[in-house]
Formats: sequence, structure tokens, C-alpha cells
Amino acid sequence: MNTKLLAKHLGTICLLIAMAMGFSLPWALPQIGLRGDIPTSGEFEADGFRGLLISISICVATGFVLRWFGRDSAGHLFRKEAMAIVGLSWVLATVMGGLPYCFTHTYRAASIRLANPLRPVQLYAYDKFVWEQWVAKAPVDEGTFAVLSALLDAGAKGLPSDQLESIDRQFASKLLELTKDSDWQACIRFPGTKDQHVSYDCLNNYRIRWIRTGFVDSLFESQSGFSTTGATVFSDLEDPRLIPHCILFWRSSTHFLGGLGIVVLFVVVLGHGSAGKAMMRAEVTGASGPTSQSRTQHVAWTFAGIYGGLNGLLTVLLKLEGLTWFNALCHAFGTMATGGFSTYNASAGHFDSSVVHYTIILFMIIAGMNFTLLYLFLVRRFREVFSDTELRAYLSIILITAVLVAAFGLAHQDYRAADDSTQSVPDAFRHSLFQVVSILTTTGFATHDFDSWNHFGRGALLVLMFIGGCAGSTGGGAKVVRHVLLFRILLLELEQAFRPSVVRTLKLNARQAVSPEMRKNTVVYICFMAVIFVTSFVVLIMIEPDSTWGFTDEATRSVDHKLIDSISAVAASLNNIGPGLGTVGATQNFGHFSSPAKLLFTWLMMLGRVEIFAILVLFVPSFWRKR
Amino acid sequence: MNTKLLAKHLGTICLLIAMAMGFSLPWALPQIGLRGDIPTSGEFEADGFRGLLISISICVATGFVLRWFGRDSAGHLFRKEAMAIVGLSWVLATVMGGLPYCFTHTYRAASIRLANPLRPVQLYAYDKFVWEQWVAKAPVDEGTFAVLSALLDAGAKGLPSDQLESIDRQFASKLLELTKDSDWQACIRFPGTKDQHVSYDCLNNYRIRWIRTGFVDSLFESQSGFSTTGATVFSDLEDPRLIPHCILFWRSSTHFLGGLGIVVLFVVVLGHGSAGKAMMRAEVTGASGPTSQSRTQHVAWTFAGIYGGLNGLLTVLLKLEGLTWFNALCHAFGTMATGGFSTYNASAGHFDSSVVHYTIILFMIIAGMNFTLLYLFLVRRFREVFSDTELRAYLSIILITAVLVAAFGLAHQDYRAADDSTQSVPDAFRHSLFQVVSILTTTGFATHDFDSWNHFGRGALLVLMFIGGCAGSTGGGAKVVRHVLLFRILLLELEQAFRPSVVRTLKLNARQAVSPEMRKNTVVYICFMAVIFVTSFVVLIMIEPDSTWGFTDEATRSVDHKLIDSISAVAASLNNIGPGLGTVGATQNFGHFSSPAKLLFTWLMMLGRVEIFAILVLFVPSFWRKR
Repeated sequence: MNTKLLAKHLGTICLLIAMAMGFSLPWALPQIGLRGDIPTSGEFEADGFRGLLISISICVATGFVLRWFGRDSAGHLFRKEAMAIVGLSWVLATVMGGLPYCFTHTYRAASIRLANPLRPVQLYAYDKFVWEQWVAKAPVDEGTFAVLSALLDAGAKGLPSDQLESIDRQFASKLLELTKDSDWQACIRFPGTKDQHVSYDCLNNYRIRWIRTGFVDSLFESQSGFSTTGATVFSDLEDPRLIPHCILFWRSSTHFLGGLGIVVLFVVVLGHGSAGKAMMRAEVTGASGPTSQSRTQHVAWTFAGIYGGLNGLLTVLLKLEGLTWFNALCHAFGTMATGGFSTYNASAGHFDSSVVHYTIILFMIIAGMNFTLLYLFLVRRFREVFSDTELRAYLSIILITAVLVAAFGLAHQDYRAADDSTQSVPDAFRHSLFQVVSILTTTGFATHDFDSWNHFGRGALLVLMFIGGCAGSTGGGAKVVRHVLLFRILLLELEQAFRPSVVRTLKLNARQAVSPEMRKNTVVYICFMAVIFVTSFVVLIMIEPDSTWGFTDEATRSVDHKLIDSISAVAASLNNIGPGLGTVGATQNFGHFSSPAKLLFTWLMMLGRVEIFAILVLFVPSFWRKR
Repeated sequence: MNTKLLAKHLGTICLLIAMAMGFSLPWALPQIGLRGDIPTSGEFEADGFRGLLISISICVATGFVLRWFGRDSAGHLFRKEAMAIVGLSWVLATVMGGLPYCFTHTYRAASIRLANPLRPVQLYAYDKFVWEQWVAKAPVDEGTFAVLSALLDAGAKGLPSDQLESIDRQFASKLLELTKDSDWQACIRFPGTKDQHVSYDCLNNYRIRWIRTGFVDSLFESQSGFSTTGATVFSDLEDPRLIPHCILFWRSSTHFLGGLGIVVLFVVVLGHGSAGKAMMRAEVTGASGPTSQSRTQHVAWTFAGIYGGLNGLLTVLLKLEGLTWFNALCHAFGTMATGGFSTYNASAGHFDSSVVHYTIILFMIIAGMNFTLLYLFLVRRFREVFSDTELRAYLSIILITAVLVAAFGLAHQDYRAADDSTQSVPDAFRHSLFQVVSILTTTGFATHDFDSWNHFGRGALLVLMFIGGCAGSTGGGAKVVRHVLLFRILLLELEQAFRPSVVRTLKLNARQAVSPEMRKNTVVYICFMAVIFVTSFVVLIMIEPDSTWGFTDEATRSVDHKLIDSISAVAASLNNIGPGLGTVGATQNFGHFSSPAKLLFTWLMMLGRVEIFAILVLFVPSFWRKR
């Protein structure tokens, strides 16, 4: 392994990230970081600005050290080096991109909860610092439990704030008394303490507190951004005291960078830039030969240009449709990278405008298309575009699913507002189409709480998660083309079962035959995804306690949703979607998971984004040995 | 296609089934069909006897017609004919085996339920005859709904029977009044009507009635028996008025026949009888060449002998351990065929004896082993047996999972009885081991309601469903060997990603290399299973209304379990297991599903059993064309 060459390239990545972070600095100014309906303190975000500056310094320093180490590197990039660079730069970007969350006072919600009273009572709390974990397992007697439980209940019932404060104080002192002599006290905070914003989750009957995002949270958020997943640990994006505007902008910037990396690095540099290769994403890990270098560079610039142009176009359109520049930019980044980070708690549903929704739908569809086709479209080779098998399958899936989901939703009155008995068919179709496109393209924006839909709608979205966007797009997942190929391969195999001697050529488009190598790669990839999916599911239900689903509240029995929620959480992170079902649904977030689970999700997002091989090989010992 | 040859073989199948039905006749006598703790009326089961006789007559008649049609058949069995025979005889056996349920007065439970009062109120009921369906969608006003709801509630609260009867009459007359002039009246029955046994499902707050099993129910039950799945539509097996003993015996007999068919037909006749081929179950559809005929017949007899011998041995052991002959035979059939039909509502949990449980565990493990290994064991070639890769993987999975599940269960106090605060570790391990072995071998017996376990336990069982028994056993599922192979294939592919030129030989056992053909077949099979699984899941959640999960009862929110229950139901039928999670859990059954869903499950059980290809090819038009 040519480590010097590796170091040089990784150093460049660091410097690029530092440069990108610089663009988030101006939004710390109250005049610029305006969001219209969100009240700002009108002050300069000194904390966020400082956090960004520290992060930039670390990136620059690391970058120079790495480039100094690799100053006299020589030699070409071979397959192994190319794979190592892709894998390692993804890891590096994740760590560097998470720094701003660490060095700024950003907060996520955490819960103090009581376990099932029928079993030995245990108190749980999160440790707030760096490697947070379940620290408290203090057994209490049933009487004390009843007191604590009553206090929690009272807190959850929405009492006036002065009464709440008194209850809160009683609760906290009771907790302190119970946990005397344990190392647990440090993580309990009281109302009135600086940096604390106390609120209650009335639905789940827990005590919610705001705690500093730790190292694991930052890794998760950063990975989610770069991998264009859009899953978040933040539960309130609209309070600048919890997350400053400039950090929010950095959060959306990671989407832009991730999307750019995918388009340029994977589609072009590693995939030889040819349409055929770009379509077969299992091929993206091939080495870039020196012969095609200039052509590759040309295509790289073209693709980057298309990507940047679409981002700019969408920003201007959204601005014209009434968003502020801040919101327009952030949502354009989230859309074109098929990411899904919003700047509002209600995601795209915050903009109550069908024009904005349809604009985002259109650009999500474009972002999920193969960039080669976008290029062909620009040079007016329309016939090739519209005869593309994958594109046809992609658009058919969107249309059929959206109509079905809308029909089932109307039949189940899912689109009826609480105060209204009528449902509007255009609204239903818009919400259905938005959610279907958002999940299929692995974006993850939401305009409607699809988790409250009928169960065909929820199930259909769950299945869409495994399909993904088109190959050569910024979308994640297994890609439409693989499913098209898989379907045709299985049909051929079925015929071979009774006609073993017949050999047929598998074709994708009219003149594009699929090699046996590609056929094998397709089924092997599907198997890889299946095995990783099932294994991760088992690991997740093993490391994440049932109490995450809250078994204090027997009435809603949300603990019974652990299995389906875990399935959807693994699917949503492995396929780079973002929201899943239930506890990670459209209105929820990943903040309440334990640290090991968050690391698992971070790992899955990376695996899914870099298409498995480039990351997994880093863990094969012989990969690092000399050739 | 040589249809005459086909007809001749199918005719033989019919006659064999008729003969097998004959063995169920004696159990209609009260002296023989004794079950110890179940009170019998002491009368001859004339109804069941007549039903069996009619079914036997139909089988014999069909058999003779088919054999007459194929009387002058000639020619050898080629691959296509062999596949057609396997596929079609399975379909034929399913239809014929279902006749006794149709021609006897057997009953399953059905519900009359009220839909969510928040939405337009609808009344649902099942039509009781043949092609049952949701027939009633009568809108009612809120006042009427309140009355009906109150009546249902009263009925569910366990009032004394004289009060119940009055409420029942009010409820029925109200229903009749509501549904006047609709074709819905025919399916409402009143208490006191002949053939009606009214009871109430107190938990789910529904009106439960016993209705005749229809054609679809019979198909389902018959397929479940022959495919050794063990899923059932019957919710009460302990009342001879609902299902006669002789029919119960026939039900278990179908397990024995199915298991015999698998061992002889698939492992031996179609799989050439060699250990290597028997291990690669994708190969079982190969033609039986005339050269190996005598050797094949010898192995067929040996395997049938081992299977019969083990059935006999287990029957005697269970009889010695205190079961009646009836119960011993039925449970031996269910165990050795990895079926899972019990004669008690509590399944194997009815026998509160660890000796019985460990006996069944041992024989389930044996039944899930490759029959070739059992043969090698009998001829004392122990070294080959214990060095077998698949067997080692199989036993390791059982041990590791059982220990993990027991540990998690103990930590969550899952094994604590309601009136006891202590848990016994040996009991916990026994229950854990029993459930793990039962699910892995695809048997489906239960000694503990695993659906009430912690969610790691439930999830682990769900994942085990996709592993299955060993190749060449009576167990279903994807088979352990395929997973072992898949794991090794994926490791090789990972290495190939960065060393494209390295070619390695894949080995299963020390001296058994895996051909590229087998490698391909393994991944293709896994993909087939994945695609069928996902497609069936989508179809199921589309055709089965959410109301099957009962949205009248908002408190338990069991409707939210539709997705996970559907996943488990599809997994349990496709992999021939039987029970799943939630509404098809260990204490539940498949009776309350709609007819289209039951047909889907029937189809999946068949697909899973005959290893996909033999059935799916029947639907490829070119399969039936002349070669």
C-alpha cells in the first residue's frame, strides 16, 4: 500500500473540508442568518462562530500534516489505493465534519425514564459527556417508584410552569437522594441551571432534558450529512439557543459536499465516466487508468457543473417562492443531494404551499436520476434518455406507488385534518407523491406524518426503502437498475431450471448486453445487503434496551414496536434515507438511541453510501499487506 | 410434455392418499380415539367417519380415472416430467387432503367486529360459505354504534350465560334490523341454532362465533399439513364437537405423509440419493437417470425406513412418558416431519413435563438433520457425521441462540409465572431451547408463549425463521448449508473486490469442493427467497384489511402490529414454520385472515416446501410447450 500517496490525498480532503466550513461562518451574523418566522436573539452567534473557527483550524492543521507526510509521494492510483482513498476519506470527512457540533454548544433531547414497575425497578439516565452511556441502574423500592412515577406523570400532564418547577425540583432531589454515592449524579441537571431548557414530552410521559451533543452524536450527525442520509439526533431545530444558525448551515452543507463527492468521486473518477460503467455501480471501485484521464476530468467537471447548477436553480426557485436565502439554500442542498436535513422541525411540511412542495418533488426526482442521463438531456439526446430502462422503471415505480398510497390513504381517511371531515384528493396525491418520492430517492423530507397513515401506506414506504434511486445519482439504496436486473436474472434462472442447456443474453437497454460478471455482481450485492441488513437488525435489538421504546407507558405498548421500528431504522440508515417508522418516524429522531446503536447507524450509513465494498475491505487484513 | 405418464403418476398419488385416509377411520371409535383429559361424548364419531369415507371415495375415483387415462403411458421421466410430477402432485395432494375438513362438520372461529367509531362506522362479518369474504359494510349512525358496542362489551366481560343469551339476542336482532334488505343476513347465526357454539374473546372484545370451515380453510389446513408447516385455522382443538378425533388424526397424518414425501421424493428419487447432491437442495429437481435406478430405490427404502423407525421410536417413548397412543402418534408425526400440528390448544406446553419436552427437543434436532448423516450414523461412520460442516453450524446455531435467548429472557423476567417472583434457570433454558429448536427446525411446537418475551427473544426467533433446518432433512426454510455457503461466498467476493485476479476454490467439507454452478445457485436461491418474501409482504398488507388487527380496541393498538405480524406470517408460511408473532403468535392461529390472504399463505407454504422452482415453473408458459 502506497501510504504516502494515501496521506497526500487525505490531506487534500481535510483542506477542502476546512474551506467548505468557511462558507458557514457568515451565517453567524444576525443580519444574514435570518429565517423569517424564527425569532433570533439578534445577536452575533459568537459560540457557533468560535466552534467553526476551532474546527477549521483542526482541519487545516491535520491537512498540512498529512500533506507534509505525503510530500514526496509518487506512483499511480491502482485499484487498492483507489479503494483505500474512498474508504478512508469517508471516515476522515465524518470525523472532521462532526467537529463543529462538538465545539459549539448544541443540544439534543435526552430522557430520564423509569423502567417497568412490574419488574425490578431501574432508573435510567444518559451520561451527558463524550462517550455517553446508560449509566444508572439504581434499584428502588416500589414505594419510591410510585412517588417518582407520580411526579413524572404530573410533569407530563402539562401543568403551569410554576407548579412544574416545584415538581421538577422534588423529582430531582428524590433522584439525587436515590443515587447518592454513585457516579450517576453528574448527569442530572436541574431547572434554572445555565444551558438547560426543560420541557416535557407529554405523549411519552418522560422527562425530556436538553443535553450537549457528544462525540458520538457528532459523528452520527456528520455521517448522516455526508452520506446524504438526513437522519438526525436533534429534536428541535427552531431554537437558536439549541443549535445556532451557522451550525445548521454547516449541517446542510455536509449534504452538498456529500452529494458532490458522490457525483464526482464515484460516478466519474472511479467509474471511468462512461455511461455503461456508471450504471453498474458495483463497478465504481475500479481503478482509474491513466489513459482516460483527460476524458474523466472533463466528465467530472461537467457532472459537478450540472450538480452545482441544479443546486443554484433550485435555490433561486425556492427564494422566488417565498423562502429566505438561508432556507432556500439549505433545502436545495438537502434536495439535490437526496439528503433530507431541513431547518424546521416539521421538515418540508413547514412550508404550507403546494408550489414549494411540487418544486421539491420535481428536483428530488431529478436528483434520483442517473447524471449521465441528465447530461444526455442537456445535449438534447432525448431519445436515449427516454428509452432508458432504468429511468422508465424508476418513474413507473413512483407513479404506481403514489397512486396506490393515495388511494389507500383516502380510503382510510389519513389525509383528514382533525377539525375537518373532508379530504381533498389533490392534497392527498401531493402528500402521497411527496412521501413516495422522498423515500424512493432516499431523500427523507416529509410533508405529512406518514407514520400515522394506514398500514399499507407505511409498509409500502418501508419496501421502497430497499429500492433506492437510480445508479449514478446522488440517491442511495440498492438502486433501481439492480432490481430491474435481478428481476430479469431470476426469470432466466427459472427457465434454466427446466431447460438447463439454453443460454440467453441478458440485455438492459436495447444495445447494452449484461456480462456474466455483472449478473453475478448484482445477485452478490443483493445478498450482501440482505446479510448486512439482518445482522445489523440482530445487533440492534441486542444492544438497544427495550426501554428505549418506553415500557413505562403500558397503554400505548410502544415497546411492542421495537422490532418493526428497528427494521425500519436499519433500513433507513443502510439505504441512506433518514426517517423510518415509529420511534424514528417522520416526526421523531435518532437522538434517544444509546451510543452503541448510534455508532451502528453511523457504520451502516457509511456502508450504504460507499456501496459496501470500499468500506468492508478496509477490515480485511490482507488488504493492507504488500501486493 | 408426456401427459399420460403424468396422469398415471398422479393417479397413484390419489390412491396412496385414499389408503392413508383409511388409517384415520378407526379413531372415530370412542374406545380408540381416547385422549385422557379431553372428555368425549362416548359416542361413535359418525360425522367424521362419513366425511372421511366420502373423501376416500373421491380420492379413489379420481385415482382410477387418472390411471385409466394414463394406462398406456410409455417413456422415461425426464427433467421436465419430474418437475411437473413434483409440482402437480403437491397441488393434488393439497386438494384431496382438504376434503375431510370440508365433508365433516369442523368449525373454526370467526369474528363479528365493529370498525373504528371515529371513522364512518362499518360492520364487518364473515360469510360462512365456501368462498368467504368480507360481505358487510353497513354504515350505521353513532347512536346505533354505541348500542352495539355496549352489547359487545357486555358480552366480552364474561357475564353468566343466561344474561349473555339475552344480550346475544338483542345484539343479533339489532344487527338483523340494520342489515335488512342486504344479502348479509344469511351469515348471522343466533345462539341456540344447531351447530353453533357461542363464546367470547374477552381480550379482543369481539364476538366470536364458530363457523364451518370452508373450502379455502380446508386448502390451507391441508397444505399446512403436507408441507409440514403446522399453521392452522382451528382455534379450539380440544372440543370434539368442533373437530372430531378422527379428523384430528388425519390432520397429523398429513404431516407424516408430507415428511415421507420429502424424504423419499426429494432427497432420494429426485436428488440421486448421493450425499453431495442431497446437500445441494437446488439440485433436487434434477432427473432420475435409469442408470442409478436400483441404487436410488435402495436408498429410498433405507431413508423411508429411518423415517418410519424414528416415528415409531418417538411414539413408543412418548407413550412410555405418559401420553395416550393417540397423542403419542400425533405428536411423533408432528415432530419427525418438523410439522407442528398438536392435538392441544397449548401445543406441547400442554404436557407439563420436562422429560416429554426434552424428548421432543431431541427428536426435533434429529428431524432437522440431513438424512444422509443419519444413515452414516447408523452404519457407524461417526467421523464423517461429526466433521460435517453443516451439522456443526446447525448445532452451534441452536446452542448459541438458546443460551442468548435464555439469558435475555431471564434478565427480562420472561419466565416468571404470574403468581411467582422467582425464575428457575433450568426451566428458562428448557423453554428457550425448545422454542429455538422448534423454530429453527421449522417445526412450530411451543411450550411457552414466546410472543410475550422480550423483544430480543422475539426478534431472534424471527431471524431463525429464515435459516431453517439442514439440507436433506424434513425441515423447511432456506437450509443451514445455504447460509454457510453464502457466508463463504461473500467473503471470497470481498477479497475479489481488491484482488480481481485471485481465484480460490470454495470448499464445504474437507474434500467437497463447491462448483461455480452451486455457488451461483446459492445466491440466486437467496435472492429468490428475498424477492418472494418482499412481494408477498406487499400483497398481504394490501389485501388484508387493517381491521383484521382490530382497530375497535384503541388501547392495545394492535393494529400497529400489522406490519411486523405480516412479516412474521409471510416468513412463517414461506419457511414452513407455523406460528409467527402477534396475531399469528404461539397462542393464536390463521383462522381470522381473509380468504385471499389464506390462499396467499397456502401458495407460500407450497413454494417454500417444494423449493420454489418445481412450483414456479408450472406458471412459465414455455414449460408446457413441446420440447
